[in-house]
Amino acid sequence: MQDLSAIKNILLTVQKNIITMVERQADQADQADGQKFELDEWTRSEGGGGRTCVLKKGPVFDQAGVNFSHVFGNALPPSATAHRPELVGRSFQAMGVSVVIHPKNPYVPTSHFNIRYFQAEKPGEKPVGWVGGGFDLTPYYGFEEDCRDWHQIAYESVRSFGEELYPKFKKDCDEYFYLKHRKEPRGIGGLFFDDFNQLPLDKSLEMLQSITAGYIQAYEKIVARRKDRSYGDREINFQRYRRGRYVEFNLIYDRGTLFGLQSGGRTESILMSLPPEVSFKYNWHPEIGSPEAELYEKFLKPREWRL
Amino acid sequence: MQDLSAIKNILLTVQKNIITMVERQADQADQADGQKFELDEWTRSEGGGGRTCVLKKGPVFDQAGVNFSHVFGNALPPSATAHRPELVGRSFQAMGVSVVIHPKNPYVPTSHFNIRYFQAEKPGEKPVGWVGGGFDLTPYYGFEEDCRDWHQIAYESVRSFGEELYPKFKKDCDEYFYLKHRKEPRGIGGLFFDDFNQLPLDKSLEMLQSITAGYIQAYEKIVARRKDRSYGDREINFQRYRRGRYVEFNLIYDRGTLFGLQSGGRTESILMSLPPEVSFKYNWHPEIGSPEAELYEKFLKPREWRL
Repeated sequence: MQDLSAIKNILLTVQKNIITMVERQADQADQADGQKFELDEWTRSEGGGGRTCVLKKGPVFDQAGVNFSHVFGNALPPSATAHRPELVGRSFQAMGVSVVIHPKNPYVPTSHFNIRYFQAEKPGEKPVGWVGGGFDLTPYYGFEEDCRDWHQIAYESVRSFGEELYPKFKKDCDEYFYLKHRKEPRGIGGLFFDDFNQLPLDKSLEMLQSITAGYIQAYEKIVARRKDRSYGDREINFQRYRRGRYVEFNLIYDRGTLFGLQSGGRTESILMSLPPEVSFKYNWHPEIGSPEAELYEKFLKPREWRL
Repeated sequence: MQDLSAIKNILLTVQKNIITMVERQADQADQADGQKFELDEWTRSEGGGGRTCVLKKGPVFDQAGVNFSHVFGNALPPSATAHRPELVGRSFQAMGVSVVIHPKNPYVPTSHFNIRYFQAEKPGEKPVGWVGGGFDLTPYYGFEEDCRDWHQIAYESVRSFGEELYPKFKKDCDEYFYLKHRKEPRGIGGLFFDDFNQLPLDKSLEMLQSITAGYIQAYEKIVARRKDRSYGDREINFQRYRRGRYVEFNLIYDRGTLFGLQSGGRTESILMSLPPEVSFKYNWHPEIGSPEAELYEKFLKPREWRL
């Protein structure tokens, strides 16, 4: 049942498909100035390793990281057993693909995607397996059309696995990507699920693949729609300021980041999620009535985005 | 014994003295282009409040935050009772001054200073009080002379309270300001102490004042020595890259930051420690033999700096 090499192949194909989408969008920007990914393969002394693919500063993307990793160890770290105390101390396998894409144009939102397979093991017992993942969008300037498309495609990508899934995953996403210390959502959400084992594993893996296809379709649509819109210093300054929130979320709250750092993952691969240029400004607030204020008022609120 | 208003007065004087030092250094840069602090007074709905003083972008300092805060509540948050399980659930008072100064010139190090008084209370029992604090230095380019002065003055500031204190506080500082996920110290250390109650309270308060005088003397010496040294884009780029480490430390590890965010402190005041402009670069390493590599090789190692 738990054929790890088959799961690994599925995840590596997911990684390849997302890279292809990013390179396709990067290539269309100027005539020939396309960006390409760099590949780093790494191994972890305690077991496992990964393929980190990063694309740096170019005409369309400031930075894009599309990472596969496979780690295993003798004891699940605390960040993985918070909701499953019965599994404390078990050996484990964790495999996943993590994606964070920071575009150059402030009108193109940052996106995050992740899918993962976890397995806890105990000698003499059947392994316990579950999946997790999702995708979410972090705009700098809000466009209702983009948010509706994003959520409509998110809905369609999980519909055939259960009508109840989108509302649950959407709500969990709003709750997870939330900066408590600011009382502020990170972005406009999407899908988030963890500890998911209500379907047979082969169905769960199909769902991960469907979610991947949805992410590629939705994000590519938005990138293509916004990437040539003109902008100036004002928009760049706001983008850098808002990227500070991304840093705050990932370092203070993100379970994947904490799991990676606690389980001895490769630091540079884990922290590729951090945006390349960031500004922190003490007590800064957008001008009332500005497009920057509109982001907070209309978009950084949990909303039903589907029509 | 625990005269909170007397302690508050001591801390407000500490705040004022540090502000005076920073403004003195800012004024000397150009003829008349001195920087001044902005003051925000705030109150906390659960009790307490603070005086946040921040100086922004100017000729000498990119940002300097010199904050006083006084918070109290019905139950000590987890970050404060990690080492004192017997105090879980007690009501508390916490008062302190926190300082983070990010200079503009990359040859001038960032410095951090903090002193705090904590008191846990239970009806019918005597309050349990203790102090904590210290100061540490984070250079971008290393100068042995600066590190020696910093540690010599640190030593002198606590010597009369016990010969054993400097070695202990110095070691605790090296251990505390350490980025485990990078196996890298944040800077060259200084003094760090927490849960300190081995002296009578009046002696402890004297020690906090002596440490304050030491911080002012040591940091002002280094700022004055380095602030007019010429630099270019290369040094600024390295400064911004290294400031990423400051962000990582403060958001992932710093107990003061976590305590502040967990206890409902004012987010903008707590996060004034974050540097204004930061770059994160995937898998970047300094060139072998460069001054940037020298920082890692000679300075970001726990060392005995006193001659």
